[in-house]
Amino acid sequence: MREYPDVQGSSVSGGFKISRVGMRGIRREVKIARPGREVHLVPTFDISVDLPADQKGSHMSRHVEVINRAIDMVIGMENQSLEGLVERIAIELLKSHEYAKYADVELKADYFMEKRSPDGRNAVENYTIFASARIRRGDEKPMRSIGVEVSGMSTCPCAMETVRAMLKDDLRSRGYSGSDVDILDQIPVPTHNQRNIAFLKLECRDEINIEAEELIGLIESCLSSPTYEILKRKGEGKVVLDAHMKPKFVEDIIRDIITTFLERYPDLPPTMTIMVRSTSEESIHKHDAFAERIGTLGELREGSRFDRD
Amino acid sequence: MREYPDVQGSSVSGGFKISRVGMRGIRREVKIARPGREVHLVPTFDISVDLPADQKGSHMSRHVEVINRAIDMVIGMENQSLEGLVERIAIELLKSHEYAKYADVELKADYFMEKRSPDGRNAVENYTIFASARIRRGDEKPMRSIGVEVSGMSTCPCAMETVRAMLKDDLRSRGYSGSDVDILDQIPVPTHNQRNIAFLKLECRDEINIEAEELIGLIESCLSSPTYEILKRKGEGKVVLDAHMKPKFVEDIIRDIITTFLERYPDLPPTMTIMVRSTSEESIHKHDAFAERIGTLGELREGSRFDRD
Amino acid sequence: MREYPDVQGSSVSGGFKISRVGMRGIRREVKIARPGREVHLVPTFDISVDLPADQKGSHMSRHVEVINRAIDMVIGMENQSLEGLVERIAIELLKSHEYAKYADVELKADYFMEKRSPDGRNAVENYTIFASARIRRGDEKPMRSIGVEVSGMSTCPCAMETVRAMLKDDLRSRGYSGSDVDILDQIPVPTHNQRNIAFLKLECRDEINIEAEELIGLIESCLSSPTYEILKRKGEGKVVLDAHMKPKFVEDIIRDIITTFLERYPDLPPTMTIMVRSTSEESIHKHDAFAERIGTLGELREGSRFDRD
Amino acid sequence: MREYPDVQGSSVSGGFKISRVGMRGIRREVKIARPGREVHLVPTFDISVDLPADQKGSHMSRHVEVINRAIDMVIGMENQSLEGLVERIAIELLKSHEYAKYADVELKADYFMEKRSPDGRNAVENYTIFASARIRRGDEKPMRSIGVEVSGMSTCPCAMETVRAMLKDDLRSRGYSGSDVDILDQIPVPTHNQRNIAFLKLECRDEINIEAEELIGLIESCLSSPTYEILKRKGEGKVVLDAHMKPKFVEDIIRDIITTFLERYPDLPPTMTIMVRSTSEESIHKHDAFAERIGTLGELREGSRFDRD
Repeated sequence: MREYPDVQGSSVSGGFKISRVGMRGIRREVKIARPGREVHLVPTFDISVDLPADQKGSHMSRHVEVINRAIDMVIGMENQSLEGLVERIAIELLKSHEYAKYADVELKADYFMEKRSPDGRNAVENYTIFASARIRRGDEKPMRSIGVEVSGMSTCPCAMETVRAMLKDDLRSRGYSGSDVDILDQIPVPTHNQRNIAFLKLECRDEINIEAEELIGLIESCLSSPTYEILKRKGEGKVVLDAHMKPKFVEDIIRDIITTFLERYPDLPPTMTIMVRSTSEESIHKHDAFAERIGTLGELREGSRFDRD
Repeated sequence: MREYPDVQGSSVSGGFKISRVGMRGIRREVKIARPGREVHLVPTFDISVDLPADQKGSHMSRHVEVINRAIDMVIGMENQSLEGLVERIAIELLKSHEYAKYADVELKADYFMEKRSPDGRNAVENYTIFASARIRRGDEKPMRSIGVEVSGMSTCPCAMETVRAMLKDDLRSRGYSGSDVDILDQIPVPTHNQRNIAFLKLECRDEINIEAEELIGLIESCLSSPTYEILKRKGEGKVVLDAHMKPKFVEDIIRDIITTFLERYPDLPPTMTIMVRSTSEESIHKHDAFAERIGTLGELREGSRFDRD
Repeated sequence: MREYPDVQGSSVSGGFKISRVGMRGIRREVKIARPGREVHLVPTFDISVDLPADQKGSHMSRHVEVINRAIDMVIGMENQSLEGLVERIAIELLKSHEYAKYADVELKADYFMEKRSPDGRNAVENYTIFASARIRRGDEKPMRSIGVEVSGMSTCPCAMETVRAMLKDDLRSRGYSGSDVDILDQIPVPTHNQRNIAFLKLECRDEINIEAEELIGLIESCLSSPTYEILKRKGEGKVVLDAHMKPKFVEDIIRDIITTFLERYPDLPPTMTIMVRSTSEESIHKHDAFAERIGTLGELREGSRFDRD
Repeated sequence: MREYPDVQGSSVSGGFKISRVGMRGIRREVKIARPGREVHLVPTFDISVDLPADQKGSHMSRHVEVINRAIDMVIGMENQSLEGLVERIAIELLKSHEYAKYADVELKADYFMEKRSPDGRNAVENYTIFASARIRRGDEKPMRSIGVEVSGMSTCPCAMETVRAMLKDDLRSRGYSGSDVDILDQIPVPTHNQRNIAFLKLECRDEINIEAEELIGLIESCLSSPTYEILKRKGEGKVVLDAHMKPKFVEDIIRDIITTFLERYPDLPPTMTIMVRSTSEESIHKHDAFAERIGTLGELREGSRFDRD
């Protein structure tokens, strides 16, 4: 068979190492067998390796071959997971690119999960999940991460108190007094509320072994309220009331997620990094508000008592 | 000078007419002198002409030349406007493409406008504006359109009534009665609220001659509330209260915009088409709700009394 | 059970009919049993109904319920298809919204298909597919549509001829002549090439009964070349050469798709509308070039002989 | 005047420090007076501060006030620049948020620049520019960055050599030999080419003082070819030929940008970080290829002789 020139493999002098070379936006169907069910996902993959200073180019077609091969390998594995898939791809990337020291793999996928609404209806809700692995040749363990993004609801605590004061002033100016006015301290009053996009990511060299469903549930419990695809009048009323009983700034959401996470997972290694972000698509502004915290579990456990810089 | 083959201009047999051929995503800076000020915009243009069945291709480079030439021409005009600019581009397109019968031009641009917030602060708010012209060779007048998109706030009337009933039930179950409970009929109670993206477009052969600012103001008056980039506590409270005094479905917003428009512009031609759309980025759902109405002013004027199919 | 006020169902006077009210961006997992295999898709749905002038609002929660119900119904059907699914949703929407005259359903989904590359490797390629149904109460048949979007390659015929002339001039200026120069008429020479996004949509009251795979294959045969996720050197060279043997303007791609479609499907009804669009993400410009044609098969069959306006 | 509760300012116990709290997607018009001309931009701002563990929330409205104030201040400055603007915003953020230790500001804006095409036509081309400042209370200098993103053209060196070999084989198989075949070593032959998006970012505590135009020109000189909004046949042919005389992998583009940058700016501080990325929207694939390098100028100057890990 005719051999064509290996332009990529040719050597160059005076070159520089390339930190990452690879592909973005590769989409594949993946089936993962989980205990009791099969999850069908369509992730988008971004993958890369590094390239030494004296080699002209990376062999790009091997990147896609590796993804395909790793997907096939994972289907045969006993413990199937997205974490396992990205790690497998990273290992195979290093095998394929014998000149590379590092391999990086990131994936992002829509995720669907059945949930019961406050009026007792089951419906499918959608989320986004993330996984990554970065491996260095010779290292036993890759740096792994998993993440989830959840759309829910946040209600503003500040505007609620201003509105409460305004409503009381207004009632007084209309001649009401006493318990007619004080009753407003007994109930939630209007405030602005909106979609809040909350994101949690964990990064660690050890296997993380937490189900995406658990993280989604944890985040939803820390929003003013989860949201639902189907709500009849009673369910809608309950969601609105629940959300107004738990008004939260983006800062509150971040802190509540961290507190809940630390309580629920006391045995995770202190070197694990957690990244939490909450973005409110403000209903009273045209721009978004956001808050985020990045830290190791070690720092944060200390920090729940005394948080240093 | 060396002549290169005019491949586009070559004739083909057995071909088909092309409805539109042109370019998308051309960005240019445009300055428009308006009475008393200069507006600086960065529109994105989509432009096209048709192509007869017997010609292989359109001369694409002429499209961009025409945009540049028309922008320069408009700068010298007495009555400068985006409507005038798209019409000028359309006319020049037909001159440049002697084989074309039709020319189409659409533009979209960010638009900034100073507005006073409820607590009396001036700040710049951002919007999107649209203009288009479609001209047929030989016709005196093009089909023109102008449009605006406005981000504001909508509050749900249905959830408010459910929540009111729930709060009254709750107060009664806690032993309250009489005026302590009835006071809830005197005040707005919590409901879900969210960003609402409202869009209005007018289409007509005649010059439309309505300022974008007027249409933006009209739409903002029909939302539950406009939104503001800067709100101090008092302003924020007022916006929330105002929005809760005017709870609106997407359907209500559409109808209020049409009603207000018909009242404010009684002399516009009955053949003018109006298209109104309202999209709520629902805070209690992960998906959006929307409503839209398209109709001629003639139909709608009739329809305000009796709306037929 | 406590009844909450039906605010949507309340009647309004002086209102206007709403052309469409519904939801955008609802995502669901769908399994379709096709002959010999099961297709797993994650479509995004946009659905709506109209609303009479005298009713305040549409019952939004029913929209999502209908999607869920229709997905379940289709799983039990003998001939499963996306066309069948959108039609079923439209029918159920009219049942749920007893006040509506029209129901509209559109879906869009990623689609994966295995394809053999020019160097004989099987790999999965990704596409986008579309389906819609618009039904009017009382009509026997909805207006249906199906569509596919395909990413491939286009090479410019015009630049190729200019470059050929330039290369010949250059060789002559370097002292070459005769067959050394004329050989350039025997081979493809460089031109600009780029991603081309081709889109084809069919609309008809009758069942369309064409597989998405067929339409994808038809479009790929009309591009300068299909593209492939994995190409080794030989395959890459073949794709480049094939694409340079078939240089095509966006106009050529449109016409070739129409010609091929008319030949391949001579028995489709003349009232069927076809919409074809080709968009080149120009490698020599920062903007895109595009062409499109919309027409009935009747017009186009006539037009392949003589194309009228 | 009525005082409303300062919910944000209230103290919390058991809280965590928030790394960043602020706003995303704020759009403003900015005029910058540059030597000899005025630049009009519409940047999008992302801004944030940190928040101590014992404070409930950040005062969000101050963020937008600060942007407005800083824009006004910069208009009065002698040396106006985007770098100066983001630094000014960061300084004002720390003044406004007396509890914050850090302030972060990022902006991104479309940028337009006139350029002469190979056939001697002046036209406006569009780019994206970036600037950021991160300041710590008490530090004299912020960490600053500037960046540019440029859309140009890349042509594949590997496919060109494969195609050359294939074309020569083909000519031989058709009976050609000698100079008729060898002529193919004298000319560029077809390969795949596509839009390439190149990005360069510099980060440093010192003022960077490099014009965006210079960086744009530097990057364009390192692509296979710049691209142009208007090209007549001759100019189009020249661009295609130029690009085929400089075939480049994404890796080549990265290395050429770094080499050129180091040569052109020998006096910049060794602590300055440079980040370079090149993304090819592959015309033969549906996904993108990319390469990136991050390093300090010190490392890279060393690395141009011997590049260590």
